[in-house]
Amino acid sequence: MSAGWFRRRFLPGGPLPTPRPPGPRSSPVPYRRPRFLRGSGSGPGTADTSRRPRSRPVHSPARGRTLPWNAGYAEIINAEKSEFNEDQAACGKLCIRRSELGAEEDQEWLNLCPEEFLTGHYWALFDGHGGPAAAILAANTLHSCLRRQLEAVVEAVVAAQPPMHLSGHCVCPSDPQFVEEKGIRAEDVVIGALESAFQECDEVIGRELEASGQAGGCTALVAVSLQGKLYVANAGDSRAILVRRDEVRPLSFEFTPETERQRIQQLLLAGEFTRLEFPRRLKGDDLGQKVLFRDHHMSGWSYKCVEKSDLKYPLIHGQGRQARLLGTLAVSRGLGDHQLRVLDTNIQLKPFLLTVPQVTVLEMDQLELQEEDVVVMATDGLWDVLSNEQVARLVQSFLLRNREDPHRFLELAKMLIHSTQGMESGHTGEGQMSYDDISVFVIPLHAQGQRHSGH
Amino acid sequence: MSAGWFRRRFLPGGPLPTPRPPGPRSSPVPYRRPRFLRGSGSGPGTADTSRRPRSRPVHSPARGRTLPWNAGYAEIINAEKSEFNEDQAACGKLCIRRSELGAEEDQEWLNLCPEEFLTGHYWALFDGHGGPAAAILAANTLHSCLRRQLEAVVEAVVAAQPPMHLSGHCVCPSDPQFVEEKGIRAEDVVIGALESAFQECDEVIGRELEASGQAGGCTALVAVSLQGKLYVANAGDSRAILVRRDEVRPLSFEFTPETERQRIQQLLLAGEFTRLEFPRRLKGDDLGQKVLFRDHHMSGWSYKCVEKSDLKYPLIHGQGRQARLLGTLAVSRGLGDHQLRVLDTNIQLKPFLLTVPQVTVLEMDQLELQEEDVVVMATDGLWDVLSNEQVARLVQSFLLRNREDPHRFLELAKMLIHSTQGMESGHTGEGQMSYDDISVFVIPLHAQGQRHSGH
Repeated sequence: MSAGWFRRRFLPGGPLPTPRPPGPRSSPVPYRRPRFLRGSGSGPGTADTSRRPRSRPVHSPARGRTLPWNAGYAEIINAEKSEFNEDQAACGKLCIRRSELGAEEDQEWLNLCPEEFLTGHYWALFDGHGGPAAAILAANTLHSCLRRQLEAVVEAVVAAQPPMHLSGHCVCPSDPQFVEEKGIRAEDVVIGALESAFQECDEVIGRELEASGQAGGCTALVAVSLQGKLYVANAGDSRAILVRRDEVRPLSFEFTPETERQRIQQLLLAGEFTRLEFPRRLKGDDLGQKVLFRDHHMSGWSYKCVEKSDLKYPLIHGQGRQARLLGTLAVSRGLGDHQLRVLDTNIQLKPFLLTVPQVTVLEMDQLELQEEDVVVMATDGLWDVLSNEQVARLVQSFLLRNREDPHRFLELAKMLIHSTQGMESGHTGEGQMSYDDISVFVIPLHAQGQRHSGH
Repeated sequence: MSAGWFRRRFLPGGPLPTPRPPGPRSSPVPYRRPRFLRGSGSGPGTADTSRRPRSRPVHSPARGRTLPWNAGYAEIINAEKSEFNEDQAACGKLCIRRSELGAEEDQEWLNLCPEEFLTGHYWALFDGHGGPAAAILAANTLHSCLRRQLEAVVEAVVAAQPPMHLSGHCVCPSDPQFVEEKGIRAEDVVIGALESAFQECDEVIGRELEASGQAGGCTALVAVSLQGKLYVANAGDSRAILVRRDEVRPLSFEFTPETERQRIQQLLLAGEFTRLEFPRRLKGDDLGQKVLFRDHHMSGWSYKCVEKSDLKYPLIHGQGRQARLLGTLAVSRGLGDHQLRVLDTNIQLKPFLLTVPQVTVLEMDQLELQEEDVVVMATDGLWDVLSNEQVARLVQSFLLRNREDPHRFLELAKMLIHSTQGMESGHTGEGQMSYDDISVFVIPLHAQGQRHSGH
């Protein structure tokens, strides 16, 4: 499959980049497991193999190591799909310093108050593909990008209303009114900082992987607490849900070739693929028949008479877990993949991928939070075999039975992973078995909600 | 303002179309009010001026003329904003004939059963701009386009599952399974037909207006009942809501420069406008300052240092009722506007506009419909001064007080319009006054729901 049209469209005026940079190669990104699993017994973290000697071990932090908000974490590596666990995780306190404007007219920034000014917390999951490197880089980098982006706009984040000018100077007396009419709130500036941080992190990953001659990409799912709100930013197919006594609420939505069909179809105007969607890939026998199809502007389905150009390879092929963009990728948003090409061609995937996350905001200080209210964040391996409702039932019944255990959120994260390992695990698994990497955070909201309820 | 960049982008390889076609001019589209207002007393429809002699008259069908499902309708012309009422309405029975495949191998279609096969009902509102012609053409045409589009796929609409091939032949034995896995249902084919009908109608309007040397465009809001479902298709800023005893549910969403910001920003990559959004139009004094902005991929807001190119005219200007695309149009989807250009330039608006509606489906046969359950459809003049909740309260209390009146839905439509005419009307208006054209349908669902409850 030649890539002429694609090169013309997406690589104007230049030759294809050489697969390896001409400069000196930097050393490859070293493999590691999350920092908070270090020093926690056998191997990385506590390998919980006692009850099920023949199954894969579930790793979690040592009991003495408390994660932010007493969150629970557990992970399991895939059933030999890859040598390394391609999931990565990170969490910690987010300390944002204030930069105040100097009095001088030159409007340079001075750090008048270099110590902590605004603090939040951060939990993140990254699900790698094409190797573990991109997910490791994202776990090492994204929180720094986010801190930098938040520090650049912190004056607007803490203001009752973000000022039109970051300097605070009013060029036009009615500037506050313009901002008011647009409905711009401090949380919109936090969302903007999250969007910029994903972008910046993607650029770092691109540079680092190119320098080390490595490849790959990853999804990113991030929860950030700031000023009584929980921001959930997602690019890829991991998922976060809120589980309360009487409520299950999705806090993120998956970005796959199927969910982003219309955006992706719009990018491809002509060429060696067909952007049209058919129930299956067409073949010669379909020529001249009227078959079901839909184009980028359609939500419904219609019929068209099959022409020769409809027999081309489809832009999006297969459905559900099998859906692939250009036969290659199962996700349509994420970090990395700068060098990824369609197998046996020079066609790049990156122009079809978005780095920008979708951000949802949970107003924790508006909820009457209970002891058992938690956010569950997990990579796709969990959600492939358990629905939101099944996870919610497992969470609700587990927390009801384990009110006193100070490590109950840790145990709950481990239990959720055990529940994906099939009937033979002796757990509440409903028979389905996941062979994928799985990482789970369980974040209790109660203590935080109380702390901010006075706002 | 020259339009060089725009011409290069959107009018490749050709001169600008001459404002008038060279051929013989056809006669202009004659002005009219909806057909069902004919022969109903003074002027078009019954002018209800008795109680408020100095206000604009509210028109509605004569009491003897029953609309489908005993729906109510009323309209009012604007306060001299334009000479004509630019709103238009249409409703009626939708009779879809079946075309059956002949037995011959050549697969020609034969009308074996030319009489009615599938029937539904249709209510539509069109809100014109730049003259009444486009809305009149849409009211005259869209239902025919829809009937034609539905007849072309009626075999799939009535099937338990739409066949992959419209001929019913199975090229591949697992074709039904492919359709099943994609989750394609009969209602998706109805949605596809609605999408195609809007497209076809837009082409008719473009041809007719060009031939008669007229101009203008219109929004379109359509409700179609078919097989126990109500399909609501919307392109523009009219709105439909479901009002029940304990529920208010939006059945459509508005398409304006604000709601479609990201799609529109993505179309404009360079040129004489800036695609960036700022709280207000920037000026020289803002140069070099860090100001709030957002780009097409952002939902949140961030700050950027103002450069000279940021001082260009914004793609989307103003907010709320004042928001305009290229300083011209308040809606971003609709029919017509093929010749519309930015004032004093040759820049065309049409490339930024979508014809395709968004379709929502109300499963009437799944609801336990009550006597007072109605759909309220109205042009933007109503919703500018009354919220969904205010309309719902007016509907609920009116129907509670008027259980016995056989003309209560007609009276309710009139009352809703009176409620937009300010405090002095003596009605329940909450003080706000609309000066726009307003047209309202009130469609009771109860009888229909009963008829289909056995399905």
